[in-house]
Amino acid sequence: VNDLLSDNSAGLCPEALAALTAEAAGPADAYGADDATARATARIRDLLGADVEVFFVATGTAANTLTMAALTDRWETLLCEEYAHLAVDESTGPEILGGGTRVVTVPCEGHKLTPDALRARDATIPRGVHHPAPGVVTVSNASEHGEVYTPDELAALGTTAHELGYRFHVDGARFANAVAALGCDPRELTTHLDALTFGGAKNGLALGEAIVLFPGDHQARAAARVPHLRKATGHLLSKHRFLTAPFAAALTDGAWLRHAGHANTLARKLSDGLAAVGLPPRFPTDANMVFVSLPDHVADGLRGRGWRFHMPGHPDWRMARFVTSFDTDPALIDRLVADAGDVAQAR
Amino acid sequence: VNDLLSDNSAGLCPEALAALTAEAAGPADAYGADDATARATARIRDLLGADVEVFFVATGTAANTLTMAALTDRWETLLCEEYAHLAVDESTGPEILGGGTRVVTVPCEGHKLTPDALRARDATIPRGVHHPAPGVVTVSNASEHGEVYTPDELAALGTTAHELGYRFHVDGARFANAVAALGCDPRELTTHLDALTFGGAKNGLALGEAIVLFPGDHQARAAARVPHLRKATGHLLSKHRFLTAPFAAALTDGAWLRHAGHANTLARKLSDGLAAVGLPPRFPTDANMVFVSLPDHVADGLRGRGWRFHMPGHPDWRMARFVTSFDTDPALIDRLVADAGDVAQAR
Amino acid sequence: VNDLLSDNSAGLCPEALAALTAEAAGPADAYGADDATARATARIRDLLGADVEVFFVATGTAANTLTMAALTDRWETLLCEEYAHLAVDESTGPEILGGGTRVVTVPCEGHKLTPDALRARDATIPRGVHHPAPGVVTVSNASEHGEVYTPDELAALGTTAHELGYRFHVDGARFANAVAALGCDPRELTTHLDALTFGGAKNGLALGEAIVLFPGDHQARAAARVPHLRKATGHLLSKHRFLTAPFAAALTDGAWLRHAGHANTLARKLSDGLAAVGLPPRFPTDANMVFVSLPDHVADGLRGRGWRFHMPGHPDWRMARFVTSFDTDPALIDRLVADAGDVAQAR
Amino acid sequence: VNDLLSDNSAGLCPEALAALTAEAAGPADAYGADDATARATARIRDLLGADVEVFFVATGTAANTLTMAALTDRWETLLCEEYAHLAVDESTGPEILGGGTRVVTVPCEGHKLTPDALRARDATIPRGVHHPAPGVVTVSNASEHGEVYTPDELAALGTTAHELGYRFHVDGARFANAVAALGCDPRELTTHLDALTFGGAKNGLALGEAIVLFPGDHQARAAARVPHLRKATGHLLSKHRFLTAPFAAALTDGAWLRHAGHANTLARKLSDGLAAVGLPPRFPTDANMVFVSLPDHVADGLRGRGWRFHMPGHPDWRMARFVTSFDTDPALIDRLVADAGDVAQAR
Repeated sequence: VNDLLSDNSAGLCPEALAALTAEAAGPADAYGADDATARATARIRDLLGADVEVFFVATGTAANTLTMAALTDRWETLLCEEYAHLAVDESTGPEILGGGTRVVTVPCEGHKLTPDALRARDATIPRGVHHPAPGVVTVSNASEHGEVYTPDELAALGTTAHELGYRFHVDGARFANAVAALGCDPRELTTHLDALTFGGAKNGLALGEAIVLFPGDHQARAAARVPHLRKATGHLLSKHRFLTAPFAAALTDGAWLRHAGHANTLARKLSDGLAAVGLPPRFPTDANMVFVSLPDHVADGLRGRGWRFHMPGHPDWRMARFVTSFDTDPALIDRLVADAGDVAQAR
Repeated sequence: VNDLLSDNSAGLCPEALAALTAEAAGPADAYGADDATARATARIRDLLGADVEVFFVATGTAANTLTMAALTDRWETLLCEEYAHLAVDESTGPEILGGGTRVVTVPCEGHKLTPDALRARDATIPRGVHHPAPGVVTVSNASEHGEVYTPDELAALGTTAHELGYRFHVDGARFANAVAALGCDPRELTTHLDALTFGGAKNGLALGEAIVLFPGDHQARAAARVPHLRKATGHLLSKHRFLTAPFAAALTDGAWLRHAGHANTLARKLSDGLAAVGLPPRFPTDANMVFVSLPDHVADGLRGRGWRFHMPGHPDWRMARFVTSFDTDPALIDRLVADAGDVAQAR
Repeated sequence: VNDLLSDNSAGLCPEALAALTAEAAGPADAYGADDATARATARIRDLLGADVEVFFVATGTAANTLTMAALTDRWETLLCEEYAHLAVDESTGPEILGGGTRVVTVPCEGHKLTPDALRARDATIPRGVHHPAPGVVTVSNASEHGEVYTPDELAALGTTAHELGYRFHVDGARFANAVAALGCDPRELTTHLDALTFGGAKNGLALGEAIVLFPGDHQARAAARVPHLRKATGHLLSKHRFLTAPFAAALTDGAWLRHAGHANTLARKLSDGLAAVGLPPRFPTDANMVFVSLPDHVADGLRGRGWRFHMPGHPDWRMARFVTSFDTDPALIDRLVADAGDVAQAR
Repeated sequence: VNDLLSDNSAGLCPEALAALTAEAAGPADAYGADDATARATARIRDLLGADVEVFFVATGTAANTLTMAALTDRWETLLCEEYAHLAVDESTGPEILGGGTRVVTVPCEGHKLTPDALRARDATIPRGVHHPAPGVVTVSNASEHGEVYTPDELAALGTTAHELGYRFHVDGARFANAVAALGCDPRELTTHLDALTFGGAKNGLALGEAIVLFPGDHQARAAARVPHLRKATGHLLSKHRFLTAPFAAALTDGAWLRHAGHANTLARKLSDGLAAVGLPPRFPTDANMVFVSLPDHVADGLRGRGWRFHMPGHPDWRMARFVTSFDTDPALIDRLVADAGDVAQAR
């Protein structure tokens, strides 16, 4: 099927299915006191540091909003890119789970957040009890528009956030794609973080995200709060091993990076192909998403040929989003480029 | 392993695993717009009525608390048995997800709630803006202590609840066990309900509960609210088919009732066996749980032989809970009864 | 008028009116940065200790619920007498302002809470993330039924609360009546407290309660939270001096104790009078409220003669509440006793 | 004193003090069942229509946030000017009292909101359960920068808001100033409103704002919700008459408009005077506030002469705010203009 709607549309990677099958028989302690959860936690500590605290939940919205709730008080803000998933795609989750969190967006025209933009936005919010107080700065890496923040960019943002009195969080629903894109040690992307949402579902799991809390001023309090908040919001899965065993499996032997790398490679292939037929990407294609401003006849033409893709973002942009995943077939990309070339010339 | 801790400790039934395997490859629309979700919804409508509204979530706490949130205003009450899962085992989930719901427990000494007890408790809460207003009456069927409410009992409770201005909900984390125990049409257990939590995880799924809303005064409003609340609390799973395909499979060809019936049969076998060695059940063994007041030397003796079980409820009761599940081995029950007989006489 | 409905029905004491008049002209800094607020704070520190933190709000519900919100996390409990104002008369305020607080009532048959009852109730709530965690124990002094907790009783309750992991709060909507009743130094009633709601409205102010936070493990955090919570819930009055100047005035030269003492004296006079005509008080008349179980013909007879009183509490008790206040006329009490005698004999 | 900090710094108007004095003696029913509340309600109905619903609270933040809470569901938005009091000066009140409301600001450079700006901002928020849903559009009249929305402007905004699926609210903390400025019938400013916060405190009361709900699709539901929400958030004053009697008095014989007109006149006088010394207003001086961009030496010079004023808004603007009130002395304005002229030339 001609489907590049989302990495949420993709299936289950072989490692995840094998892990589910292996766990199917027999009892295991509920609520996370099981071996699979211990393994998944250990794998994340191998990757990100022995001193991180790790909690698993089913959805990215849960991971993000619970992390915000754990890191903030009810009168504090969440500062983020204007297109952040937390601001756009999680309904009023930050407010409800945070018990009041104010969501403050920073204009960024779809691009990455900068320390200057962060400072400028913060400067418009006076301090004092009359005003929402500094809470968390969060960016998505890879970003919602498929760009990847480098270690230096994250360090600068984290430093700025901390100077201004905020904690610093990365929404890593596509963290694997960011790491694969940069080819770096994952720890290089977390040096200044208080928390990371480490995504699984968009990279071949059925479900599952990890809340990772890093050492520092805020870890102890947040780590004490997440378990209560996770339970009290219905996010503590009873048969926890079916959440964590696939996660552990995907983190073994580099499977997670192979899957993300595959998706990234095909996104780049698509981006290059579309550019060659006169449809250059709207943003750098760092990760597994290609954004292209499509004239109406091209968008309609592609839909007429059965292609499925999302039209997000600012209404003026006429922008299509194509997302690749761990199991995208290279031949599908070839066909899409060919079809795009056809319909673009057809006018 | 000598594990009768919980039906949350059990694994994955064959139908669920097969369904996950079948869904693993290829794309499907996210967030519930997929065939598996349509099938699961249709199966529940086959069982409970073409006019029910159905929503799926991962956990029982999510199903219960979102249903409460959908059925109440923020100044209303949740009336339940003093041992209800919603009151005891979901932290402050009803309050947080409901945005303020007051939890009011009705003394019941571990037994089923009665219309008289309900009326008496309600009478202590004055009407008017100073006081929490009537919200939802909820009972668990099977109950937290393994008893099963009959159709007549539920009809009487529902009628009373409605007369007093409450909606009526059943927490059916073990609804399958209740239906299997009574051998009735499931609809006989839902005649007076506004909402049902239809459980999957305790009956052989990896995860998954259905929120079922019944026709009546409250269905339209609640059905309009659940989708927003489910998303805004992080409970809308993206790769929805991995939640719903196993559910659909378990509801096909009566698998769900076979599994629950097996668990019930073994609980009865255990209950009878324990009674025969002088350890009669504290409550009628209607479903898949056996509660026994164990003298300390018996509890310690069983633990010494490797048996695992839960000690819930009122501290004075010294009560052990043994839970059977879809995959409990009859030989395990025989061994437990033999061991219990040994240690009980050993003093 | 024959009105003994409530000390909320009474007017404004002379000291309060004089203070309002004196503040009427000219500007003063808003939001509490004014002289009157400084004076009121200083007066409370004179009474309760130089190291208490003090915040003013308009209503008792605000004072109580904000204090709970400041002292608890969202997954914690509020343990109180089953007839506590916080549990019965503040709608779902504790839950909404606390962002999730569970209200847990302790059976007490209308009488004062005891350490044993507290321990017994706490023992029914298991520890761990599945369950609401220990938050605040609160009692009303004077109690909702007009009894007064002694220093020893409060010390025992506070010690028990702290041992069990709770903070300890007194709802002092009628704190003045308690102090006047005991004739003690107010500090004797606050030795084991983390927080006190120090009431003004029921003792002759138009409005106004003080949140008082005592030194100890919880003061710093709560004192940092109250200002944000007070503002974010709309409880920070802009023209603060009109809230605090009357409070300061009433706390000067013992006016607050004279007013409360007057009310107490007349309640005792009423209690003795009613007992003499065969209507003994249901609870000891320690403060400014008299509770009497009235046969229907007596209640109806008194209403027929124009008497107004409240009928609270358990529906089986047929209990009338008569409340005296700073401006109750002794002649009114004489007339009520005479009328009660008449109608009681009239059958 | 040289104080033009705020109309929150002003005192009590004579009508309000007289009303408090008149109510001081004797009992009255609590919680709004008193004559003064009936009179205040009747006066507002005289002004705004017999079919409006009216509720009184102590603070503007309470009035605004409770109205938002009553008019929205927990997954809905509040759209407002980027400088709206609700967005800037009420901490996270809209989120906390609304149980999750998303605050969305519309860029307006300090000026009045327009239908086009409203449409453009709304267009960036997709519809569907993933995104916050349309809730309330609110503007302040007079605006936070002292401009007044005309009846035509409000009608256009209200029509647009309703077309887009929002309710329409006016924050009338300075409603009296808007009416006085336009010299119109108050009803001309409420034709398209679902709700109005009718301010009292900034116009000479000690405290007090009215929540006014207008006939239409949303009145019945909101009017049923406000009483519960008001109580459950601690905003139902017990001795209600001391809140409402001054309100009723100020609304009698046009006192409220005389007071607001006086303040407006002096603001205009100040605005003209400052313009004449080279300090033109940054926004039209429609109501009782004058905003001027002050060079540092002027701001410092005025402060050096004892003048007190607020420096709000965007940090780049260097903008001072001078606010007049019901009791501002014309001689004070003369002195301020003279001093401003002096220090402006002094460089």
